[in-house]
Amino acid sequence: MTGTIENQEFIQERNVHGEQAENKPARFPRVVIVGAGFGGLQAAKALGHAPVQLTVVDRNNYHLFQPLLYWVASAGLSPAEISMPIRHVLRRQKNTTVLMEEVTGVDLARQEVLLGERALPYDYLVLATGARDHYFNHPEWMEYAIGLKSIQEATDIRSRVLRAFELAELEPDPEKIGELLTFVLVGAGPTGVEMAGAIAELAHKSLAKDFRHIHPTSARVILVEAGPRILPTFPEKLSKKARKALNHLGVEVRTSSPVEQVDADGVMIGGKRIKSKTIIWSAGVAASPAGEWLGAKLDRGGRVLVSPDLTLPGRANVFVIGDTVSLMQDGKPLPGVAPVAMQQGRYVAALLKQRVTTGGPERPFHYVDKGNLATVGRSYAIVDIRGFALTGLLAWLLWLVIHIYYLIGFRNRLITLFQWSWTYFTFNRGARLITTKPD
Amino acid sequence: MTGTIENQEFIQERNVHGEQAENKPARFPRVVIVGAGFGGLQAAKALGHAPVQLTVVDRNNYHLFQPLLYWVASAGLSPAEISMPIRHVLRRQKNTTVLMEEVTGVDLARQEVLLGERALPYDYLVLATGARDHYFNHPEWMEYAIGLKSIQEATDIRSRVLRAFELAELEPDPEKIGELLTFVLVGAGPTGVEMAGAIAELAHKSLAKDFRHIHPTSARVILVEAGPRILPTFPEKLSKKARKALNHLGVEVRTSSPVEQVDADGVMIGGKRIKSKTIIWSAGVAASPAGEWLGAKLDRGGRVLVSPDLTLPGRANVFVIGDTVSLMQDGKPLPGVAPVAMQQGRYVAALLKQRVTTGGPERPFHYVDKGNLATVGRSYAIVDIRGFALTGLLAWLLWLVIHIYYLIGFRNRLITLFQWSWTYFTFNRGARLITTKPD
Repeated sequence: MTGTIENQEFIQERNVHGEQAENKPARFPRVVIVGAGFGGLQAAKALGHAPVQLTVVDRNNYHLFQPLLYWVASAGLSPAEISMPIRHVLRRQKNTTVLMEEVTGVDLARQEVLLGERALPYDYLVLATGARDHYFNHPEWMEYAIGLKSIQEATDIRSRVLRAFELAELEPDPEKIGELLTFVLVGAGPTGVEMAGAIAELAHKSLAKDFRHIHPTSARVILVEAGPRILPTFPEKLSKKARKALNHLGVEVRTSSPVEQVDADGVMIGGKRIKSKTIIWSAGVAASPAGEWLGAKLDRGGRVLVSPDLTLPGRANVFVIGDTVSLMQDGKPLPGVAPVAMQQGRYVAALLKQRVTTGGPERPFHYVDKGNLATVGRSYAIVDIRGFALTGLLAWLLWLVIHIYYLIGFRNRLITLFQWSWTYFTFNRGARLITTKPD
Repeated sequence: MTGTIENQEFIQERNVHGEQAENKPARFPRVVIVGAGFGGLQAAKALGHAPVQLTVVDRNNYHLFQPLLYWVASAGLSPAEISMPIRHVLRRQKNTTVLMEEVTGVDLARQEVLLGERALPYDYLVLATGARDHYFNHPEWMEYAIGLKSIQEATDIRSRVLRAFELAELEPDPEKIGELLTFVLVGAGPTGVEMAGAIAELAHKSLAKDFRHIHPTSARVILVEAGPRILPTFPEKLSKKARKALNHLGVEVRTSSPVEQVDADGVMIGGKRIKSKTIIWSAGVAASPAGEWLGAKLDRGGRVLVSPDLTLPGRANVFVIGDTVSLMQDGKPLPGVAPVAMQQGRYVAALLKQRVTTGGPERPFHYVDKGNLATVGRSYAIVDIRGFALTGLLAWLLWLVIHIYYLIGFRNRLITLFQWSWTYFTFNRGARLITTKPD
């Protein structure tokens, strides 16, 4: 039974046109944004006072500040500290309705977003559905190597890592203790590097004195990377410095080491097995299924190939932004990072506003790269601002200021700052809870 | 394959007798505490410098500050803010080992705590395993009426309550919206009263402006109680005042209303149905299965009937404390509250210390009742200190000071205070995450 959501129309009519008679034909264009990540939320905020009926649909009720997810996974922050309810963020926008719903498809011909058996009509559509973990041609690895894309995955990693120490404390066999205290991270992009540093500090500092039988300081944290160097999107000099900083934290880095096998006993590299009970996947992402909904041309990672104005070729009213998109600029594909998604969200919002109001000539999207950051542990970061490099504590402070600034919500910022200061000075981690059951 | 945990002995030998030769017969008595709730943790802390080998076993890796669990369930605090890793709390006690394990039984004859296929020998045993929800003769109600005893249950309630509003926002049928926005709490002890006040404030204040279609302020919060008045352990005058305060918050209170039926559509009271999709169970608890492990004499709630020194009759080296125990004092059973468990934990620790050192005459346990508190919403509480009554904001401030003081860990105290201040002044709730899937 498919039908348009009648009350949805009603909702928006009542809010946007509260003063109008019901039978008046005039209505504002309906804009639907799917996904309230960095791109979708920026677009929604920028359309807050535009003459449109805006509906934001997300499967979750919260916006997640994903760059700090590794802090949740390493027991430094609670999920609520890096999340905000979407409808609370947008509560003051009278033209905006937020729906917590799972989108199942798009009917381009009828201009409807499909929500299971129901449908949500649109005049303009913005798809900002993000990315998911990608295990290349090995979907069976997913069972053993957990990714870090959602709160669920982050608390799962947290439970697995902490439980590994608990099980090791109960284990009489030194070899098995070794397996339990070996943590393997596959993929040395920013997520892999940051997570490796965080686990190393958790083991070697935060947990150091809490056990009687095992020595958490003996835990091995191994970061494996198929490519020749870590953090390949940074200049080579910074990669080297970051690697040194990781070694300093006790992380073993193995580059040019493609993973050949992942299973319940560990990973296989160069024909050799690394025995480990905890494997974290940070090797790659693929776009969300939005491309399939659209029947669009996709790149190898499932990303939609869009026009320079971020529309779907042939559909001037359908935009795709963020990690779901493949776009070349200056001969290189734009990276799947928050600033790209945010700038795309604001660009699309401005374009839409222009179209529904004054009209006029349109410019293609152009990404302004303000720099690239990654942290290694609690006081070291590397920063690359258009070729200008910064490393060490100063870079870390810059990272801190930027991330707190962008953490949506004043309260979250203060609590996060407080937690960070606390962790920094004491190495205590406040969220050391094992809340999920083992499989 | 049952065997004693050899390495367990090894662990303690190494830590407690690090300086002794391995073949020396002397060793400190082995004390095992099962459960690190209020009672168990107090006992463990009080034995920190006693000449014993102490092992604390808990199924979780954290101590939970249960009196604030309703804050998690109502999206005001994160789980980590009311929990502390047990081994971190006890990390400075050199004589103490913490094991995260599920206890499956006790072998009194062999003096062993059973952990699945393994066994942990003891010279003295302290069982502090707490209580669980009790659905009287209706275990089938458990599926529909969720209790509030664990972090899992608290985040489940949080998800259910928040999801009810999200589903209502999508629902065109006003009758179904009404069912979704009706919250029924069964049982008007402190937990039911506090949870009812918290849900009322969440709906009527925190969420008030965040929806477009529904009016969260129209949500009904119904507190039903089989007995003639709410908070029956308080003086009647205070019950009346608390009821008035609840009404003021918009909670409907129905006393003398035993629940006859609980199912997916709501509850049945006096032959009439209250349609509701969210039912919270705060009507009763029963003791943990420790009594069954011991084959002990139990009261109707499954609590172990102990001797005046809290030992199992006939077993002078087996203590049972906290919610697992039934003990009469001045003709009344002691209530199942944190202060009773904590005093019992300290009593048992003192008795044990005396027995393994100087010896001498022993006194029976005597509970010193320092008072009884319950909150109604964000600025009202009732306090009964040995007949001296206090109500209103001042009582609430007293409650606040006491609870922050007892919240273990300096960091948690500060963050909690900050969150509370924030919630108090803004009505914003920081943990509004729906993180569990619907069934």
